[in-house]
Amino acid sequence: MNAPLPGQLMPELQLRPVPPALLQALTDRFGARCSTAAAVREQHGRDESPFPATPPEVVLFCESADDVQAAVRLAAEHRVPVIPFGVGSSLEGHLLAVQGGISLDVSRMNRVLHIHAEDLTATVEPGVTREQLNQEVRNLGLFFPIDPGANASLGGMAATRASGTNAVRYGTMRENVLGLQVVTAQGELIRTGTRARKSSAGYDLTRLMVGSEGTLGVITELTVRLYPLPEAVSAAVCHFDGVRGAVQAVMQIIQMGVPIARCELLDTNAVRAVNAQSKLGLRELPMLLMEFHGSPAGVQEQAKTVQDITGELGGQAFEWATTPEERSRLWTARHKAYFAGMQTNPGCRTVTTDTCVPISRLGELLMVSIQEADASGLPYYIVGHVGDGNFHLAYLVKDGDLAQRETAERLSMQMVRRAIALEGTCTGEHGIGLHKMGFLLEEAGDGSVAMMRQIKRALDPHNILNPGKIFSL
Amino acid sequence: MNAPLPGQLMPELQLRPVPPALLQALTDRFGARCSTAAAVREQHGRDESPFPATPPEVVLFCESADDVQAAVRLAAEHRVPVIPFGVGSSLEGHLLAVQGGISLDVSRMNRVLHIHAEDLTATVEPGVTREQLNQEVRNLGLFFPIDPGANASLGGMAATRASGTNAVRYGTMRENVLGLQVVTAQGELIRTGTRARKSSAGYDLTRLMVGSEGTLGVITELTVRLYPLPEAVSAAVCHFDGVRGAVQAVMQIIQMGVPIARCELLDTNAVRAVNAQSKLGLRELPMLLMEFHGSPAGVQEQAKTVQDITGELGGQAFEWATTPEERSRLWTARHKAYFAGMQTNPGCRTVTTDTCVPISRLGELLMVSIQEADASGLPYYIVGHVGDGNFHLAYLVKDGDLAQRETAERLSMQMVRRAIALEGTCTGEHGIGLHKMGFLLEEAGDGSVAMMRQIKRALDPHNILNPGKIFSL
Repeated sequence: MNAPLPGQLMPELQLRPVPPALLQALTDRFGARCSTAAAVREQHGRDESPFPATPPEVVLFCESADDVQAAVRLAAEHRVPVIPFGVGSSLEGHLLAVQGGISLDVSRMNRVLHIHAEDLTATVEPGVTREQLNQEVRNLGLFFPIDPGANASLGGMAATRASGTNAVRYGTMRENVLGLQVVTAQGELIRTGTRARKSSAGYDLTRLMVGSEGTLGVITELTVRLYPLPEAVSAAVCHFDGVRGAVQAVMQIIQMGVPIARCELLDTNAVRAVNAQSKLGLRELPMLLMEFHGSPAGVQEQAKTVQDITGELGGQAFEWATTPEERSRLWTARHKAYFAGMQTNPGCRTVTTDTCVPISRLGELLMVSIQEADASGLPYYIVGHVGDGNFHLAYLVKDGDLAQRETAERLSMQMVRRAIALEGTCTGEHGIGLHKMGFLLEEAGDGSVAMMRQIKRALDPHNILNPGKIFSL
Repeated sequence: MNAPLPGQLMPELQLRPVPPALLQALTDRFGARCSTAAAVREQHGRDESPFPATPPEVVLFCESADDVQAAVRLAAEHRVPVIPFGVGSSLEGHLLAVQGGISLDVSRMNRVLHIHAEDLTATVEPGVTREQLNQEVRNLGLFFPIDPGANASLGGMAATRASGTNAVRYGTMRENVLGLQVVTAQGELIRTGTRARKSSAGYDLTRLMVGSEGTLGVITELTVRLYPLPEAVSAAVCHFDGVRGAVQAVMQIIQMGVPIARCELLDTNAVRAVNAQSKLGLRELPMLLMEFHGSPAGVQEQAKTVQDITGELGGQAFEWATTPEERSRLWTARHKAYFAGMQTNPGCRTVTTDTCVPISRLGELLMVSIQEADASGLPYYIVGHVGDGNFHLAYLVKDGDLAQRETAERLSMQMVRRAIALEGTCTGEHGIGLHKMGFLLEEAGDGSVAMMRQIKRALDPHNILNPGKIFSL
């Protein structure tokens, strides 16, 4: 038990070299799809976290489950790490090769294998991105709701238990992955789950793999749920004088059971950033960005209820986006908030929190966190999936400025501890990775983390699957 | 790997005696709450499955997590099995003491500990039943939707990943348990999950425990989701000339995304049985029993859509139950269908299937299964949570008539194999227990079951937690 401090600033390295015999075997098997080029390694050794790149020794471009099995078997034989890689959009250092080894790039495994429109399921390879899947199912009147902002791969989204803007209504990857095909640490191919909507058949290996961040198996296929495109969709913006009113409104919306499809908070800083980038001309005040799905009458009814609530809590009149183009502009701006925020301070990186608390605790956590952020003097912005009690406070720190990093990490730590004390979690949707290992221990406790370690050791005795993530062994 | 045949008829016993020193220690610790009386043991050695009773040696009435820890620690020291027991309503032999040992009766751990109405969560002890919880939250305008029919304990419902009539809209125990307190095989108390609606913090131990049938830990506390009581509720019955039309209607309802709250099929035999028991005067034809939740306008709109669909597929006019009393009468009858069915043939027990398939495969599976059941000459009836693709065909066999049991098991096996071939599961909601161990192997494959065994061995190396269930070790 060598737990890192919460919010560690630099990855600890414990490199396990790729022996020449393994490199030769990989070259023989993968030919030009096995790369040791510096640029390729560098690209596969980083993600969107503020950690410096930590490249793998080798990158393999896998094109099939067979490729993944071959790679894992060779890696297992030589006790060398393998790290699955989708599009590189993770946020907590998941992809950094802190123990060296092989990056398994599955982005070429990007076929939509089956769409069962009549059952509302699709089976895809792990490199399929959410936008690609949505393009392929749209003409069938269907959509896949999980939307973390980035055009992430579905394999990566499953590995981090991703969610995003639609989760308040449609759930997260936890609820929307029905089954998986997985390569184990021994290089065996197994299947978990079926296409049935529910099952009580043995341990829930699907849910164990979802959120395991590549540490228990490499996902080579996913079966996910789809939903009928709603008959009517309407999006609205509602401004508030302060964050407090917005949060109170969200609490009431959820408590009343309004089936709101999206319910996002942007603070003034976030609104300013997206205005600057996307020329939206939004009033620079805290705002809720909401979307309603249903029948035309149902959407109207939901919107009416929500307007009554926001009106009583100081919300201004709704501004509607009813055409697909207007909605798309708004949501694109929301999705770009991360980059828009960074561009307000060029040359910076972000330290992003991801706490999620019971909805009744959200106001308290947000208000204290805003006070602390204001007092720190660091630039920051807030965006949040507040319908779930989840928000991101992103501090902007100058790349390489360790003092700023330390301040941001200290504030982040305080916020996480407060969230845990409020019966919440240190990560609603980004995962633990390298960055939150200490927080996991504080949140789950020694006993639970010990159980996770027991499972890891049982399934991956040589610790070759994305080692050094979630917990130290 | 000593896999039993699918649908084994008798439990295989491998008794591990309770040594005198352990019995003494348990008596010292539990006093009168430690029983070896034959009647008490007999009651704790059976469930609603057709297996003969297989009593534990000792029954402990636990009143706290402390009690459970003490019991598990003593059992661990002596390598003796412990089997958690709620109300005894499981259906697949889960509670039978096939390796002897101690039944941990948690029915006295029946306190609702916290209700957080504003967050839509409740924290309860495992012996709280679903009806008890609903009574306690009703005056807050809330309800807990998971409804397996029996007034089961929430601990047992979590252990078997139960669902029932509301799952089509509200999900199963998988989606509705947020967190657990669990006593491990070592007697340690751990917590999984938080009260936040979502989390990406490490392995999903909550979902691993849910459905693990007491083999990985003893649940001592659950935090579950609650829902606002719908503003309007309406239930309707729709009769069809044959099962086929009913199933086609269900398929279209689901594919159109109608948020129907309950969607149950009863075949003519089931209708006849509930008529005989509850004097409902229902037409003795296959029927759908449906419930709609929402705003008054929303309920009307849903019902209109469904009426259009059923009308086109030969459904008769809806008969409405709008008052709470009428609805309660209908649903009570549905819930009693199991006992009503048994009472049509006094002195019989049931062999019940629990397959669940993708909705597009439901018609095929049902029609072939009905043909086979009719040809067998055995009395049977069908009830189904058909909105989920899940149904139960219950064969009525004379208690002790092994030839009838064998016929029923053979037909059941054929149906399960067909369901698996149709990309479904052998159990939608009852669990594996003793009865479906062979089916699990056929469904999940050697690799997945091997992974389950690895997890079991890692967490419970002496195999003391409900041994002999789900898989053989």
